[in-house]
Formats: sequence, C-alpha cells, structure tokens
Amino acid sequence: MNDIAPRTDPFPPRSTALLTDKYELTMLQAALRDGTAHKACGFEVFSRRLPNERRYGVVAGTARVLQAIEAFRFSEEQLAEMDFLDEATLDYLRNYRFTGQVDGYREGELYFPYSPILTVRGTFAECVILETVILSIMNADSAVASAAARMVTAADGRPIIEMGSRRTHEYAAVTAARAAYLAGFVATSNLEAAQRYGIPASGTAAHAWTLLHVNEDGSPNEAAAFRAQIDAHGVDTTLLVDTYDITQGVATAIGVAGTELGGVRIDSGDLGPLTRRVRRQLDDLGAYNTKIVVSSDLDEFAIAGLRGDPVDSYGVGTSVVTGSGAPTAGMVYKLVEVEGHPVVKRSSGKAMTGGTKTAMRVHRKSGVAVEEIVYPYGTPTPDCGQLTGEELVSPMFRDGRRLEGLPDLETSRAHLAQQLKILPWEGLALSRDEPAIPTRFVGFAESGQEH
Amino acid sequence: MNDIAPRTDPFPPRSTALLTDKYELTMLQAALRDGTAHKACGFEVFSRRLPNERRYGVVAGTARVLQAIEAFRFSEEQLAEMDFLDEATLDYLRNYRFTGQVDGYREGELYFPYSPILTVRGTFAECVILETVILSIMNADSAVASAAARMVTAADGRPIIEMGSRRTHEYAAVTAARAAYLAGFVATSNLEAAQRYGIPASGTAAHAWTLLHVNEDGSPNEAAAFRAQIDAHGVDTTLLVDTYDITQGVATAIGVAGTELGGVRIDSGDLGPLTRRVRRQLDDLGAYNTKIVVSSDLDEFAIAGLRGDPVDSYGVGTSVVTGSGAPTAGMVYKLVEVEGHPVVKRSSGKAMTGGTKTAMRVHRKSGVAVEEIVYPYGTPTPDCGQLTGEELVSPMFRDGRRLEGLPDLETSRAHLAQQLKILPWEGLALSRDEPAIPTRFVGFAESGQEH
Repeated sequence: MNDIAPRTDPFPPRSTALLTDKYELTMLQAALRDGTAHKACGFEVFSRRLPNERRYGVVAGTARVLQAIEAFRFSEEQLAEMDFLDEATLDYLRNYRFTGQVDGYREGELYFPYSPILTVRGTFAECVILETVILSIMNADSAVASAAARMVTAADGRPIIEMGSRRTHEYAAVTAARAAYLAGFVATSNLEAAQRYGIPASGTAAHAWTLLHVNEDGSPNEAAAFRAQIDAHGVDTTLLVDTYDITQGVATAIGVAGTELGGVRIDSGDLGPLTRRVRRQLDDLGAYNTKIVVSSDLDEFAIAGLRGDPVDSYGVGTSVVTGSGAPTAGMVYKLVEVEGHPVVKRSSGKAMTGGTKTAMRVHRKSGVAVEEIVYPYGTPTPDCGQLTGEELVSPMFRDGRRLEGLPDLETSRAHLAQQLKILPWEGLALSRDEPAIPTRFVGFAESGQEH
Repeated sequence: MNDIAPRTDPFPPRSTALLTDKYELTMLQAALRDGTAHKACGFEVFSRRLPNERRYGVVAGTARVLQAIEAFRFSEEQLAEMDFLDEATLDYLRNYRFTGQVDGYREGELYFPYSPILTVRGTFAECVILETVILSIMNADSAVASAAARMVTAADGRPIIEMGSRRTHEYAAVTAARAAYLAGFVATSNLEAAQRYGIPASGTAAHAWTLLHVNEDGSPNEAAAFRAQIDAHGVDTTLLVDTYDITQGVATAIGVAGTELGGVRIDSGDLGPLTRRVRRQLDDLGAYNTKIVVSSDLDEFAIAGLRGDPVDSYGVGTSVVTGSGAPTAGMVYKLVEVEGHPVVKRSSGKAMTGGTKTAMRVHRKSGVAVEEIVYPYGTPTPDCGQLTGEELVSPMFRDGRRLEGLPDLETSRAHLAQQLKILPWEGLALSRDEPAIPTRFVGFAESGQEH
C-alpha cells in the first residue's frame, strides 16, 4: 500500500483509538462483564441504497481503514480520561490490538446496494470498537470518489483538477484530494495531499494576485500582474483573466505573454458562451495552443453541459469535496454473525440478510457487467454458466496482520477506470435511476427479507 | 481560549502549513520576485449568501483558525518536497511566522451576507498563504454550527445529542462535535471531541449489542442483552428497544429493569406514532419517569415535526455533521485592500465592496435586532439614533500575537443562545426566506456594487 506510506511524513502516526463513539466502549464493558466479549462475530460494511438514485458507488478509503486499524491503540493519557469505564475495561483497552480478519472490496471497485464492501471478523470486543473509525473513513472517502467518478465520466477525457480544499474540513480536504485522484482527477491544489499521497499538485494564481497589482493611484494594473507571474513561472503558466473584463484580460494576457501562453482560466460567468468567445479571441490573436481552464462551481452536470464547448480542462471545488449532493455514502457497520449464526435486525424498513458474505461480479464474454452475486462467505463460487465471474472480495487482514501487496493508489485508479468501461453504457448516465446492475443473493436460507 | 487547549493531548501540535493550495505559494514566489510581497494588504472572510435561503448563519471555527495560524510553520522535510519553488521562496517559508493583525466576529455570533467575519491584515505574502486553512476551518465549522442552531431551535428546549461521527471524515467528526455543542447540542458520541474540548460524551448501546445476545440455537435473547447492560451501567441507562419488535422490546426492558429504567431509545420507524404508543405503554407499566430518546435520520424539520410528541431527547447524526443540505458555509477569503486602497473584483455576479471593514448590530430598546451596519475599518461608529449599537468585530491577533482572554467554548455557546433570543421571531423560522435582518453599508465611496 505505497499510497498510504507517505513519501515524507512530518507527523508521527497518530492513535486512532479515540475516533470512536462512546457507546462502543460501554458495550465493551457490558460484554466483558457478561462474557459475550469473546464471542466470534462478523461485522459487515454495506450501504442500503445509493445516494440520490445514482447508478453505482465507488469504494474508497479501504487503504486508510487498514492503516487506522493498525493505529488503533490507546495511550495512558487517553485512558486516564475515561472515568466512565471500569478497571477490567481499561485493562482490555490498554492491551488492545486487533487480532482478527478483514476482507473486502478493493479501492476503486464499484459497489451497489448491499454489496458486502468490508467484513471484519474477530471477537465481539475487538470488532465492535472499530465501528466509528471504519465508517468515518469509508463514508467520507467513498462519497467523494463516487461523485468524482461521475464528473470524470462527464468530462469525457478532458482533465479535471481538484481544488476544493477550502470548502471542507482541513483534513477532510487532504483525503478528498486522494479520493478524487482515485476516481480519475489528474491533480489537486492541496499540498498536504501531494506530499502524503504523491498526487500531482496544480495551481497558479488567484484573483488576489491581479488585485494586488495596482498603480500608485490605486487603479488596476492587470498587465503588471500577468508580467510578474510569467517572470516567475514562465509563459507556460495559466493566467486568470476574469478579474476585471474578460475580453480585455485575454488581450492583456496574450499581449504580455505572447501566443505561446500556456493557458487562461475563467472562474465566473456563463462558461459556455464565454469559452466560445475566448477561444475565438485567442485564435484570432494567434494563440492557438493556449488552453482554456474553467472553474466556477462546477459539478458533473455543469461539466457535461460544457461538453460541446472549447474547454481544455476543469477545476472542481465545492461539489467534489462535498460529494455533489451526497456528502456521506451512507454505509453502515452491522453485526451479521455470532458464533456462526446469522443475526439480523428486524425493525421496519431496514431489510438485510444475516451471515458473513462474499460477492462476485458476472460479466458477458464482451466484458460488460451483468449482475453482482452475493453469497455466503466460505461457500463455493456460484456457477455462472456461459458468463464470467470475478471475485470481488479479497483478504486484507489475517490474524491481526495487514497483508502485504495490496493494490496501491495508482493501481486502484486504473482498476476503477477499467470498471467504468465495462458497466452497461446506460449505467454511466447522470440521471436518477436504478443501480446499473442488479444484485442477486444466492445460497442464503430464506429470510423473508427483501432487497 | 481554554477550549482549544486540550485537557489531554496525545498528539503534539501539528504543522498546518501544508493545508494550503499550491497557487498560494506560486503567487508568493512571483510576489517575492516583483516586490509586491511586502505590500500592506487586507483580506476578508465573508459569505455572499446564506445557503438554502436560510435566515442566519452561525460563526464557528474562529478559535481553531487562530490556533492554525500559530501552527503555520514549515519543516525542512516539508520544504524539501517543494521542488516547484525557488530558493528565495523556500527561505521565506523557512522563516515564516505571521506578524500581522486579525480581527473578526466571535464564535457563536450570527452572520449574514457580506458580514466581515474575519479580517487579516499584514503583508501580501504573509496573508495570502493562510487562505486555504482559514477557509477550510471556517467553512466546515460554520456549516455545522449553522445547521445545528436550527435544530436546537426546532427542539424547543429538549436536549439534542450529536452522534454523526460515522457519517463524516474521522477528524471532521471531532470538530463537528465541537460546532454542534457551540450551537446548543448538549453532548456528543465522539470520545476525541470529549477529551479535546471537554464536551460531555453520551451513548449506551447499538443494535449489535442486542443481536450479540442469542440463545444456543441462535434465537434472539433480548432480555439477556438488557440485563447485561443494566448490570454494567445501572438502571439509569438507556435501552435500545427496536431491534426486533418495539412493543415487546419495551415490555422486556421494563420487565428486566423495573420502572426506574432511565430511558428507551427508538432508532427506526415512524417516530410520531411510535413515541406516543411507547409513552402510553411505559405509563401503563408504571415507568412514568423512563425517558424516550429518538434517533433516526433526524434533521431540523423532523425534529420540529415531533414537537407535539412525547420525545424527551433527540440523537442527531448525518444531518448535523453534513450541515443539513449545506455541507459548506460558502465563505471566501478576498483581498479587499492594498496599501490603503480598496480593491475589488468586478466580474459578473460577484458584487462586493472593497476596503477593510468593521460592523455593528443595531437593536431596539427591547433588545430585538433590527439591522447590521457594515462600515470602513477605523472610521467612527455610525450614529444609531434611538437604537443601540453593538460592535461585532474584536481584535484577535496583534502584531503576530494571539490575544489572551478571548471567549472560551462555553461562553461562545451562551452568547449564541442569547443572540437567537433577540432575532426577530420570524428569523427563527425554518422556511426559506430573506436574511432575518438586513445589512446596510455605510461610509463607503459609491462603488456601483449591489448587495
């Protein structure tokens, strides 16, 4: 997992043990008292539905989850604050390390309602206290990756840069950059993400740069701003041309930089007509190779709407880091098995199937995905007849040890790109509808549950 | 700022310097080259509109911003990775510490469109590179606090517990708990927030706890789960009664705990009818003091819808940590003044007024807020006639030093509660409409900008 082994990490690994809901520790205490703490259990991460009737979700955060499980250790300082716990519980936490098994979907895999995205097996005690940190990571990262993948599809091959750090929590920004890159964005504005995950960083100048350059009387001097930027970064830089008047800004940009200017960025206004006008102006000036970058509250729909316009690349901020209307993936972490018995909550409206599970995706010979089959963990692979089945679940922790050789960020990114190519074509539509492929449950005892 | 000096901090302070967009450093390099780096500048944090046509916003994150500015220092390891910068720029960053001024609205203050929420003054170089970390914090924390305050109003005095950690980034969860508490929530599920900020922690058990308790044949044993929880935590605990059948769950709960049971929690179903039925059942059983806690995808509208029902407290998760439809506050950080000259971007649709600003809120004698007046920084307070004016902006950094004696979290929480009492009553409505009070600009040169 090269992507989570930072090239340079200015911070020591942090304990993740307090990224936990109190009720997990109160349950632990009660379980240590009544002897249930050591029962063999299976917990499952899944999602009951895709947000906003989307067609698919993208698994992200798995690599961070595995790291978080390793870092789940309590310090004496942390324990000293836990005055609501008894000595036996504090002792348990003092010596805690996860000794169980984790299996799951790889990062960059597609998921659908009830896909068994991650399964954690071990004693009740060791599994139950991981709930919050696992879900926080999976829900945040998958929400961003799922939105970002739709944007990448909408951009139809044109590059997208992630620049949303300022619109989300300062550390959520770092992992959002990672999730967007996983989903096919080409770069991020965020320097911490660049250093931590090796993602290309991008960015040139803000409106403040142009506004800074005023004459002695306070009147604007856009040319001075452009000239200084080119002096510092060369003509291959991208100049932001919409601080004052865009047509004048473009004329000034080419006047200062010449026709070899790398790009102009437009960050406001009606981008369709504007980009067409600016492209004509650039071409008329002879700046045929000067690219047009746009960035102004773009989401997947706005990106798709610009498909016919002369846009060379997109900068996307708010919408990608907030999951474009779905800021959380809605995944849950549920106890599904106790000592080999399937268990299931039966309250209204929350149907599920008990027991630990695994899954395969079935493809036609052409490669197109047909359906997902979920079946009991440890049972033989269902027969796919003339079709090809691909196992979706792989081991990640064995007896408390994180396995080596799991896919790194670049490999996961390539995997997702490939998966999106083999979805039925209508599954890539941005419109609301059913999941792109159905999920079928095979080999479970009749539970009376609907899916 | 007691609330940001952790009672126990298992982690050393972390550098915030890489929580930065690359373009801030490329601008810095260009500014160091052309001599503009040392121009005296003012940057302003403000919001052009309130999300979703809400009536007011709540300022949050300020205390964390001040701490982040202090921790904005580059390490050699960080600098070594910045191969896109020249030596002069790296030297500047190596020695960076903020030496300027910060003034702003206190945490827990209300804000409206174009309120000058935070003003940062200093050289261009030292101010421009703080943009991203300041906005990340203010946008994340204010989004949560603004949503949470509406929920507190909707709950009409009944306590709300924040339990959304699992639905947001693992560290965003910690600061979301803080913002929700600032806004009037009474507790959080999040242990890191409890330890870091001294917020009361809350929580008892999940469905997994009940599901764990099965007979030898795998059949459910809800009574065993309840009994063990009471053994560990006493009859004052809250039992989760909706794992199987709610009516049976309530009967089992009182059967095991007796009529002194602290509470029952319902986490699914149609909560209005359910709570009325459960209240009748509890009363019929003699458990008059057993409280009813509800938690099931609640937002401010669902909370308001339960006002007539026998709910004793609410648990709120997803909606509060994701800002209930507005996961970011939409604040921006704009250069407004250079060497004493107001500067302003003039592109379409993004009107603003140049120059650094301050503000006051005007109240009737009854205390009710009437309007907000924004006027140039350093000019005399406008005359309010028969009305009372309260200054909204206070100094926070002077010459690079964070000021002592700023309000702590509890004080800010009390301040917000008081502000919500003196808004015009229609300003507390959940419906979409204009801001609760208008904002008037006084004393600026005519700029032709609309607000």
